[in-house]
Amino acid sequence: MSDPIQKFKCIGVVGAGNMGSMMTFAFAEMGLDVSVWDVNTSNLDKLLGLVKRSGNLKGKIANFHDIDEFTKSLEGRAERKLFMFSITHGHPADSVLEKIKHDLKPGDIILDGGNENYRRTERRQKELEPLGVSWIGMGVSGGYQSARRGPSLSPGGDPNTIETVLPLLERYAAKDPKTGLPCVTNIGPGGSGHYVKMVHNGIEGGMLSTTCEAWALLHMGLGLPYDEIGRIFARWNRGGELRDTYLIQIASEICQTRKTPHGDEKGEGAGPNDGYVLDDVLDKVVQDDDNTEGTPFWTVMETASRHIAAPTIACGHFLRVASGNRDQRLRVAQKLQIPPPKPLQDIKDKEAFIETLRRAVFASYLLSFCQGLELIARASKDENWNVDLGKCIQIWRAGCIIQEEYIADMLQPILESGVQIMNIKLIDEVAAELRSNYDSLKQVVLKGTAADAYLPAMSASLEYLKYEGGTMLPTKFMEAQMDFFGAHAYDKPGVSSEDPGLVRKGAHHYEWRSA
Amino acid sequence: MSDPIQKFKCIGVVGAGNMGSMMTFAFAEMGLDVSVWDVNTSNLDKLLGLVKRSGNLKGKIANFHDIDEFTKSLEGRAERKLFMFSITHGHPADSVLEKIKHDLKPGDIILDGGNENYRRTERRQKELEPLGVSWIGMGVSGGYQSARRGPSLSPGGDPNTIETVLPLLERYAAKDPKTGLPCVTNIGPGGSGHYVKMVHNGIEGGMLSTTCEAWALLHMGLGLPYDEIGRIFARWNRGGELRDTYLIQIASEICQTRKTPHGDEKGEGAGPNDGYVLDDVLDKVVQDDDNTEGTPFWTVMETASRHIAAPTIACGHFLRVASGNRDQRLRVAQKLQIPPPKPLQDIKDKEAFIETLRRAVFASYLLSFCQGLELIARASKDENWNVDLGKCIQIWRAGCIIQEEYIADMLQPILESGVQIMNIKLIDEVAAELRSNYDSLKQVVLKGTAADAYLPAMSASLEYLKYEGGTMLPTKFMEAQMDFFGAHAYDKPGVSSEDPGLVRKGAHHYEWRSA
Repeated sequence: MSDPIQKFKCIGVVGAGNMGSMMTFAFAEMGLDVSVWDVNTSNLDKLLGLVKRSGNLKGKIANFHDIDEFTKSLEGRAERKLFMFSITHGHPADSVLEKIKHDLKPGDIILDGGNENYRRTERRQKELEPLGVSWIGMGVSGGYQSARRGPSLSPGGDPNTIETVLPLLERYAAKDPKTGLPCVTNIGPGGSGHYVKMVHNGIEGGMLSTTCEAWALLHMGLGLPYDEIGRIFARWNRGGELRDTYLIQIASEICQTRKTPHGDEKGEGAGPNDGYVLDDVLDKVVQDDDNTEGTPFWTVMETASRHIAAPTIACGHFLRVASGNRDQRLRVAQKLQIPPPKPLQDIKDKEAFIETLRRAVFASYLLSFCQGLELIARASKDENWNVDLGKCIQIWRAGCIIQEEYIADMLQPILESGVQIMNIKLIDEVAAELRSNYDSLKQVVLKGTAADAYLPAMSASLEYLKYEGGTMLPTKFMEAQMDFFGAHAYDKPGVSSEDPGLVRKGAHHYEWRSA
Repeated sequence: MSDPIQKFKCIGVVGAGNMGSMMTFAFAEMGLDVSVWDVNTSNLDKLLGLVKRSGNLKGKIANFHDIDEFTKSLEGRAERKLFMFSITHGHPADSVLEKIKHDLKPGDIILDGGNENYRRTERRQKELEPLGVSWIGMGVSGGYQSARRGPSLSPGGDPNTIETVLPLLERYAAKDPKTGLPCVTNIGPGGSGHYVKMVHNGIEGGMLSTTCEAWALLHMGLGLPYDEIGRIFARWNRGGELRDTYLIQIASEICQTRKTPHGDEKGEGAGPNDGYVLDDVLDKVVQDDDNTEGTPFWTVMETASRHIAAPTIACGHFLRVASGNRDQRLRVAQKLQIPPPKPLQDIKDKEAFIETLRRAVFASYLLSFCQGLELIARASKDENWNVDLGKCIQIWRAGCIIQEEYIADMLQPILESGVQIMNIKLIDEVAAELRSNYDSLKQVVLKGTAADAYLPAMSASLEYLKYEGGTMLPTKFMEAQMDFFGAHAYDKPGVSSEDPGLVRKGAHHYEWRSA
């Protein structure tokens, strides 16, 4: 295999936001010459400032205000032009593609590193196929720090094209510190790469909600100060089921980040030393409503559309959606007068409760993974993508937000063994973990509910765990009601062809009330 | 206004399933001649049998195996042909439309009474517009009994067409027993009628789940026999917040329906007198997975896509989705070994708990309405439909599954006053009800969780109520985490332009960790 840097020589980065800028640096450090274009001139200026202050880079970085000059700068350097898009999903990508289309030639490759909807990715792939141009929908996970130091990558599209760029991506991607293996793989055809990234973000959503619920229980529930919570998170992150878990690791850092007299480079976080930067942060998460993030709500839509129960992901999502409009929320709060969270009652042994909470967090994380992986498995089957769930776990081992070593260590060997599994909870090791942490999850929900704490994701996880492993669900009564008014029909218990039977309309309708 | 029966004289019903057959009878009873066609001959034969056994009908019913003869039978009778589609959503409607298209003339009207996706409805409306044919997407709620006796109808599409058929629909629709007003209105243009029906079914899903959870708490939790539960439901249905609530009413009937030696007309429910028909019903709800019902999961998709928190609806939906594949569920259960529901502990006063449960059920019903109505409000605004929420409540007063008199009495006057409200919880009366029933919901979740009972919808309702009215959510920590890795930025508490501020990207990013 020839040197991938020599093979491509240069890359054109579209979009100089946080992610695009950091990618630009990473590519230049790898030795690629990088041309950068952004519709927003101030983004380019900011990047130029960073470049000037940075040390020596192996490759050159050139900024372009004119998009034609941008594409021309890539022409004739290597066998094919290579682009990396890092812009907002939807219209922006279409608009840029329209602008550069006339300069694209057969063999050119566009890596779309944005969080694009997989159906739009597939539309663009079809649109460019007649031109011989490959559009690769590629998830880039890990935030802007990873975009610079090595992200987790999930490319999907034409297999030959992916084979062509894979050596380059392997050099760029994060490496699993245990094995040195790069966190990138050929996910599959079509929009599968963006799909896997979408679900990654969905799992992230379930984990983010679980994490902030746990933080609030420690802070409001146990009355612990931030730095002590930070030390607890650090301890959780050192060993056991939450070891080397990115969100726990940064949670620990956040809780221990104090204000300084001058703050960061731009003066944010400036203040007396006894305050925390976290004190400055309001509870609004607006990225769904302002349409900058699509992946979390697309995941919820996909779980609904493909009939995958995913309440941890959905309820975590609804919490953040509800948080965004603070103005309206305060007006509603005024009227509802729901009691705010109180200190947890009857905690005889604080340390024991913290351990119970750690286990509950782990269970809710693991259930987020179950729901996400089951969604990928279902989509892969529906779309004939043949996605290898084991490889998904491999690329999530480093550089990404849902990095969770214990879960990866548990799942990867089993999923890589080639077993086609649609329900992750059928894996013995997963079931054993869920079984042994059920009571912790239950205790946290009980204590938290009694104290009016917020538990949308954790309580949804608990309910999910119960009904996914329930032998006689209350839907028995729902089924009777639906048969009453809708003649939906039912199967009978104990009849071998019906119980458990197939997933199809039941054999019996009772005329509960005639029409 | 001329007599609507004389105006149309006949109607062509497409689809002789449960709903189509009952509509056929209803139309014939009203005096319309009815032509019926179904792709499935056995459906037509079954209907023919029913017709033969029925008494005198004012109109004639004619069955057609040939679709061309079917459409021709409607020709020349009145100014325009009128059709009622009652078939499965998606491909079937397109396929029938293709078959009859050449016989359609300007002025003809097709009422699509199926549970169609509103986007497909809009596509067909556009497709038929050049032909001068009106496609009206019309929700028909209430199950097959109502289809015969008078359903709740939500037509949407061309306003002139709706005006033309409204007198006929008013005659057919259920009547509010209090006022005599028909449960039909012109919902709005485009797919708004089918949209409102979709959300009706979403609200129904939240209510169905709440109901079966309550049933299980009474049965497994308190150990009450079915007939006693039936009497409790009957009492709930007689007065107070759950008075005249369809799902509670039929719940009462179901719980008191005993087997008889010969069962119903087809022998279902035959057995010794001490058994209940409910004993025959297994816990599988399969209508989502077998693709016969779209509305429940479309509602979840819409809540996600329009950023409306709707966890009661979503979690109720996920429960039924999880119930469908019983075979897999039993295998998962074997591995998970989650403790099954136990009798509720520490219930000192059974009657008091039953009253607490009644209030919790009401709160969860009301929150299902809030979530659904907020979804309609948002969609109506996004799509410029101008849907009158007060009229939605009016058409849900009789003949439909989500009929709930107390909620209708509370909401209708306020929503009809013309106030444009996007958040139903801002209504004083609603907020007061939610506030006063919060503790009941909490107590039920606490008792149920302690006993390992299934509470997906009710616990989701409780969490929703807390965070919708929360003044400082744990998303404060989520926001910090997202700013850490994604530079998502945050607003600051106490800064007037930021707190509460707008729903847009925050003003501050702290460099928690440099790239």
